[in-house]
Amino acid sequence: MVKQERAARTRRALIQAAAEVFAQEGFVPASLSAISERAGVSNGALHFHFANKRMLAEAVEAEAAETLRRITEAARARQTNSLQWVVDATHELMDFLARDVVVRGGFELAADAARRAESPLRGQWQGWVEDALRTAERRGTLAEGVSWTDGACVIIAATTGFEVLGGTDAAWLARRNVTRLWELLLPRLADGQGLAALASAGSRPPTAAL
Amino acid sequence: MVKQERAARTRRALIQAAAEVFAQEGFVPASLSAISERAGVSNGALHFHFANKRMLAEAVEAEAAETLRRITEAARARQTNSLQWVVDATHELMDFLARDVVVRGGFELAADAARRAESPLRGQWQGWVEDALRTAERRGTLAEGVSWTDGACVIIAATTGFEVLGGTDAAWLARRNVTRLWELLLPRLADGQGLAALASAGSRPPTAAL
Repeated sequence: MVKQERAARTRRALIQAAAEVFAQEGFVPASLSAISERAGVSNGALHFHFANKRMLAEAVEAEAAETLRRITEAARARQTNSLQWVVDATHELMDFLARDVVVRGGFELAADAARRAESPLRGQWQGWVEDALRTAERRGTLAEGVSWTDGACVIIAATTGFEVLGGTDAAWLARRNVTRLWELLLPRLADGQGLAALASAGSRPPTAAL
Repeated sequence: MVKQERAARTRRALIQAAAEVFAQEGFVPASLSAISERAGVSNGALHFHFANKRMLAEAVEAEAAETLRRITEAARARQTNSLQWVVDATHELMDFLARDVVVRGGFELAADAARRAESPLRGQWQGWVEDALRTAERRGTLAEGVSWTDGACVIIAATTGFEVLGGTDAAWLARRNVTRLWELLLPRLADGQGLAALASAGSRPPTAAL
């Protein structure tokens, strides 16, 4: 293995280990030695890649933010109805929160008292949901009497709830629960004509890769 | 002031100060000296009342749990429709999260990696919402095709979201947002006959005392 490749693997292992330790212990209690030990690298190797714990947290957050960006972009590219964008992205995000330690760690940092002011993740998700709902309103696909702010407010609250509750019990992230949300919300959010074309369970099978 | 009364005031000040410091810094980073300083008492006085930080956290959690119990009992006592119980209790809970430092601190501890396994609050809220929805199903007041688990899942997710988002931006706890949630959900949750009698904004004015 060439040196550069080995360095990239070490960096990757450190980000994953940091995400796990941050999620389990919180940012302040997490120790760099617990992170390097979990990554199977020396303290020296950790410090070669990351000068301090804050830089490790930023790397976890940046990678989670990039995954979130890919999730939302893919959902938008696949569908024309912007409510379906949000349904699909919600399913994908919960799948990732259940099985991707970096996405989970990133969102745990976003909830952490010591990191929440700096974390980009919640703002990124909220801004994207708001954009999608604004698009739906502009295109006339929202139900009469429902504004984009009404929809965005409730969707952001419910998805944040699933995300947070899934941190202690992964059963909250099950597709069935996300589908329940959309089965209850879509008939109130979408105008009658568009509703029939919307799939609460998502517009593609759960196992597809991004 | 008699000695007993002074002791009760000191204990009260310590619980409030602890709730604020836990909410701002998290359980592990919070220092006992920051808490005694904020309470305006000596370290000795703190240790007279609380042997350690865990006991302070438990006192915050117990007081928040007691307030939550009063909120839910009051909502239940006031109304016969169990969906309206949940609407009313949700409004009250968000009001308390916005202005009661102990309730806010208690729920922050429930989200804290170091305390979440022990904290009673989320389980208490979830169990109560589930009971209310089960009652609604048993009484036949849920809409056709909607089960109590569907309703409880979405209500718990959305209210947890408001609670968590309100920790960084109190605007999330505004009555208007909670009303939005119920305006979107109730027409899907409640059977047609019962719906007309339900008030998304809550069944009583926001300023009433418990």
